[in-house]
Formats: sequence, C-alpha cells, structure tokens
Amino acid sequence: MAEVPGGAGSHVDADEPAPPAVEAGSGAQGLRVGILGGGQLGRMLALAGAPLGMRFRFLEPSPDPPVAGLGELVEGPYDDPGALERLAREVDLVTYEFENVPAAATRWLAEHGVPVFPPPAALAVAQDRLAEKTTFRSLGIPTPDFRTVDTLDQLREGVEELGLPAVLKTRRMGYDGKGQAVIRERGEIEEAWGVLGSGEVGGASGDLLLEAFVRFQRELSIVAARGREGSLAFWPLVENRHRDGILVRTTAPAPEVTPHLQSLAEGYIRSLLQHLDYVGVLALELFQVDGGLLANEIAPRVHNTGHWTQDGAVTSQFENHLRAVAGWPLGSTAVVQPTVMLNLLGSLPPLQEVLGVPGAHLHLYDKAPRAGRKIGHVNVCAPEAEAAGARADRLQERLPG
Amino acid sequence: MAEVPGGAGSHVDADEPAPPAVEAGSGAQGLRVGILGGGQLGRMLALAGAPLGMRFRFLEPSPDPPVAGLGELVEGPYDDPGALERLAREVDLVTYEFENVPAAATRWLAEHGVPVFPPPAALAVAQDRLAEKTTFRSLGIPTPDFRTVDTLDQLREGVEELGLPAVLKTRRMGYDGKGQAVIRERGEIEEAWGVLGSGEVGGASGDLLLEAFVRFQRELSIVAARGREGSLAFWPLVENRHRDGILVRTTAPAPEVTPHLQSLAEGYIRSLLQHLDYVGVLALELFQVDGGLLANEIAPRVHNTGHWTQDGAVTSQFENHLRAVAGWPLGSTAVVQPTVMLNLLGSLPPLQEVLGVPGAHLHLYDKAPRAGRKIGHVNVCAPEAEAAGARADRLQERLPG
Repeated sequence: MAEVPGGAGSHVDADEPAPPAVEAGSGAQGLRVGILGGGQLGRMLALAGAPLGMRFRFLEPSPDPPVAGLGELVEGPYDDPGALERLAREVDLVTYEFENVPAAATRWLAEHGVPVFPPPAALAVAQDRLAEKTTFRSLGIPTPDFRTVDTLDQLREGVEELGLPAVLKTRRMGYDGKGQAVIRERGEIEEAWGVLGSGEVGGASGDLLLEAFVRFQRELSIVAARGREGSLAFWPLVENRHRDGILVRTTAPAPEVTPHLQSLAEGYIRSLLQHLDYVGVLALELFQVDGGLLANEIAPRVHNTGHWTQDGAVTSQFENHLRAVAGWPLGSTAVVQPTVMLNLLGSLPPLQEVLGVPGAHLHLYDKAPRAGRKIGHVNVCAPEAEAAGARADRLQERLPG
Repeated sequence: MAEVPGGAGSHVDADEPAPPAVEAGSGAQGLRVGILGGGQLGRMLALAGAPLGMRFRFLEPSPDPPVAGLGELVEGPYDDPGALERLAREVDLVTYEFENVPAAATRWLAEHGVPVFPPPAALAVAQDRLAEKTTFRSLGIPTPDFRTVDTLDQLREGVEELGLPAVLKTRRMGYDGKGQAVIRERGEIEEAWGVLGSGEVGGASGDLLLEAFVRFQRELSIVAARGREGSLAFWPLVENRHRDGILVRTTAPAPEVTPHLQSLAEGYIRSLLQHLDYVGVLALELFQVDGGLLANEIAPRVHNTGHWTQDGAVTSQFENHLRAVAGWPLGSTAVVQPTVMLNLLGSLPPLQEVLGVPGAHLHLYDKAPRAGRKIGHVNVCAPEAEAAGARADRLQERLPG
C-alpha cells in the first residue's frame, strides 16, 4: 500500500531558512492556548489539541457556543479590553478561529505582549477584499478583474468596463456568500446598490468592489501551514461545490490535478505565507480557468475545505495549526485515504444513516439546527477515490435539503 | 491503494440475529453518557464521543483526573449511592472505563433503571480470575493450567502438580502486573505466599490462583465490539510487548498472522461476547503457543492494546465502544495504516522529538509524570508495516526509561 501522492504537493517543504530556537511549549506538557471565537472551528481545534496536552480558553460573545465543555469560556465582546485581558491571562499564546474578529483586538493583544498567531496584519488583509486583491496582485497572483466602487456612478462605470454579469461585494464582513450580489442585467444595478451600498453589511456606506464574473471550470482550494520557524506544509488541492454561497461538498484530493496545477497553487500560497510572515494554517480559494488559477480569497484560519484532513490526511489542519502556533514541527500532510467531505446544513440526518455508511466519520458541532446553518460535517473515506465519491453520493441523497 | 487486510478478520460480522429496534439516541443529537472512572480511557472516550454529539459526565474518586475539562465531573467513591445517583441523573446510559469499579455499583445502577453497558455480569466475571478461567473453559477456550489456592498447603500441592516456574495471582484486583508473583524455585513459595496470601492486594486472605508458567512464543490480543442488537466487529490480532508487567509496545496488525490464527481468536472472543450478552468493546489477551492460542484474561472495556485504532483503523475502539453502547451501527474495523503504539511511561520525552517522527500521533493524558505511570502514548503509522516498525524503533530509543 502506498501513500496517495495527492498531486505534486502535499509535502512538508524543507527548503527554508534555518529555524531559530523554538520559544513556546518546548517540550512542556500543558501549553495553554487562548482562542478568539468559540464556534465549530474552535471546537475542532480543542479536540485536536487535547491529545497534544494543550488546554484552551475561549473568548466568545454568544452563550453556550460549540466549544462549551472543551475549555474555559470567557463570555464577552471581542473588542472589550477587559474580556481580552481575561482571555490572555496565563495563556502562552492566542490564536483565532473566526476571521471577523476585529483586527484591533489581535493588535491590542500583541501590543500587550501576548504572542498572537496568525499575525494581526494577515487578519487585516483578509478582512478587506481590496487589501486582499492588492496583495494578490503585488505577489503576481492572478485574480478576477475588479473595480473599487464607492458610489452608484462608479458602479455604473464598473459595469461598463467589466461587462455583465458581474459580482458586487462589500469590502468587509463577507462570508458564506453574504455581502455579495450578482448583477446579471443593467436593470439590477440599482437594486444591488440598494442592498449593499447602504453600508448595512460592510460597515461603511459604499466601500464596495465590483468583480468580473468568472466563468470558471471549477472551484478549488489549497490549505497550507507555516511554522514559527518558517517551515511549510501543503495539503493537496481539493475541489469544492457551493450552493447559495455555502460550501456543500469537498473532494480531496481534487480529481485530475496535474503536478503543474498543484505546484502553481503551492507557489501562490507560499508567496502569501512568506509575504505575510504567516504562522498557522491559511486557506486560499481559487477558480480554475483555462490554463490556470485565479485567486478568489484567503481565510487566515483553519477552513471548511480543510475538514477532510481530520480523517483523510496523516495530520489534520487543526493539529498542524496548533503545532505551527506552538512552534512545534509540522506534521505530514500526505493523504491517507481519499475523502469526500459533506457539510450538514440546517438539520441533522438520522445518525443511523450516516453511521451506517462504510468509512463515514461524523463530526457534529453541538449547534441547534437552523435553516442553512452548518451544524456538522461527514468525512466519507475509502481506499479508492471512486468508492469515496460513490459512498458520498449515496449519503448526500439522504441528507436534508 | 488497497485497505490492509489485517489478517483474516477485521470485519463487521453480519451473520447475527435480526436487530431489535434501537432504543437509545436514535437520531437524536446530544446523547448523554455517564462514565464510571475518569482516567485516560474516559478521556479518550470523551474525545471520540464529542464529534458524535455526545456529552459526558464522569464519576471519579480522585481530584483533577485526566477527564477534567471534557465533561461534568462527579467527585466521589464508586460505591456511594449518592454519587451514583448524581452520575445517573439525566444521562441516557452509563458505561465504565475501569474494570475495578465495584460490580455492585453497576448492579445498583441497573437495578435503578439506568441502562449499563457492558452488562454488570461481564464485569463481575472479568474481576475474578477464577470465574474468568471457568468461563473460558466452559466455552472451550484453552487456558494455561491452573489450581485454586486458599492455603499455603494448597500452594505447595499446586507447585507439585504444575511444576516450576509457576505464577501465583490474586483472584481479584490485579492489573498491570500487580497482584502477581512468579515462583521459580521451591524456596520462593513462602515468600510469594507472604506477599499475596495475606489478602492485602486481593481483599480476602488466600483466594489465589496458581498458574502454570506458559512458555509462549509471543503475547497477542484481540479487541472486538458487540452492539446492542448483537452485531459484531473484530479488529485484527495485535502483538504486545510488556516490561515488568506493563504494556510497552503494540504492533498492529500483528505480523505473521495466518487466517487460521485470526479466525481462532475471533471465534474465542465471539463466544465470550455472546455468552456474556456483551455490549461494548471487549479485549482478550492471548499467549501464542505451538499450534494455538491460550487465553490469559479479558478486559471488559477499551484496552491499551487497542489504542492503535485511533490512528490506524477506520474506526477507533473508543468510537465503536460508544456506538455499541448507544445502540448505533458499528464502524468498520479495517486497518487504514499499519501502526506501532508506544506507551509513554513515567516521564515525557521532548515533544519535538515525538512530533518530528513522520506519521507519529501523540496522545497525552494530562497526568503528572511519575515513575512507571502511563502518561500518554504515541501511534506511529506508515504506509508499510516495516516502515512503521523502523520509525517506532528509532523513537523508542529516545523515550525515557
């Protein structure tokens, strides 16, 4: 039996500067980790960190979050210095699991001597679609064509230049398809402006981007980790399917990925990791178009399209994020079994049906069912990609919605 | 890539009576599980159960146990009805992670209408070496020759009949080599009687077994699960190495296991599971001798020789124990990657060294280091058994002790 190659990549890259001395948690049991955010990503970080001897404290505004019972909970707003101080007390470092944490909160921690990873500057870039795209372009990473839009007139000009359809997006606070509107005809320009130009979603009035609509062949993503000493590890490219802007299915590794394509994706994310002096796991969403890849966006955290690594890779994204921020060696990102990840959205299927699927691994988030809400996922593994896909197809038919 | 066959077994056995309706947790999120004991086995059960949406409460006499932070803790003695009542309040079922929980405690729960799995009768058998051996023999499972010993004269007679060396064991409360003495010469008979015949270890004065010393080729074990509706699942035979009675290393699957040997072991444990009307995970320790297997003992719980399943099998023993007691379908026991499990005894190695080994998965128990104490384990996986063994050899050399 051979390890699945998983494209040209999926390796730990040793071609890096000599590591400085590791500072945090060197050989110590019981590293104490603070996490901004207490959702499912924090929950899965805690479950991955417990076997490494880590203990967790979470800062989360809402009561009874998915991390309840997996660590100490500080209930409070992210931008409250008192709450931040309680989070940071006696922890060795702080990380975050939600990219809409105010970048100012991470800066406050860093200024008060708390090691914060990924670096606050990376969070700030990821939170602003304009800064994100500018960063992509400065590193030679191709993106869809775009225009900044602060007024209705600029929106009209943008539509003239980019053509239709086009996608209007808020610069800030967009996720899971929120803060976006597709404009297909000129008659929809004012409606889109009315919805997004008001500043209700993104904070400030205007402050939008208009993007050319990309006729992509498929959506891919690459997830990678960078350690405190600069080591790099890349999981293979995966293929993603969305519905209404929400991820439904990830196939890992993505089928029909040439070594060239994997290496192109690794090159892009490597540039970003190094440019941002990044520490932790970073996800890069991509569109595959004829002959190449266009960068859509980054997420400065563990990512839904990396959940398959819990059961399909030697080391999960959650464990490698923790190893990275702790200053520990990164684990292998090799594929152990081809895996299809299915999100559980809205309501739970009968558990019996999920658990009866061979190779199905259930991951629930302890969240109350609600329409469209991510309440869990299932990783469906098999020794061969075709079998994983077929098992996932059968299960997907039985999922609610 | 093919799933590693893992011997003739490692499959879910469908050849069972039709299942009755599943009672517990049918499709419901948030099954509440009570666990007697709060050690590392409870900790790993909780970590495996959280993704299944389970919540845990533990009854544990000692403060700050390994399960701290992974569920609700009831601190109290196992035989205190008040503590048992607090454990059982609002849980859907109770299981145990420690086989020296008083069987009376599990009976008290069962009599008060709390579903308890594995059944108290199985616990009672496992707690008494005489009942255990009598059960083996009644099912046609060969064991080392033995004599009951209640007096020094009976011990002398036993030595005459079985020859030397022989092993004197208390009927109760033995684990990790405790409650045992090897008698190699006649001159050691009185000393062994002095240590074990006093009743200090096993409870009652006398009440011992003398076992013929088995010149085995190797120590093996098989771990299996039985569901509430009678379904069965067997992991492959594994090979175990002990030092001073404490497990040091498990190789999974055991090398050079013929389909006959796997099938013999499955037959023995199947008889036990069915005879005991068992629900949950059961471990059977075996000696391989010319032409067959001798049963040493059973453990009515998840077992140290099954820890490799966390990273080497499709479904871990912890998840399948929980699926079994919940009345849910058992998961596949197929091997994903050959794995060598190394126990971390006494003190921690530098974490960097462990995490730097390719395919090494660290599992710490959040226990303070103390000589001889099990404080964690490492599962070393590789695509090929030889590579897993070689990686484990290198790591083992660097472990303390």
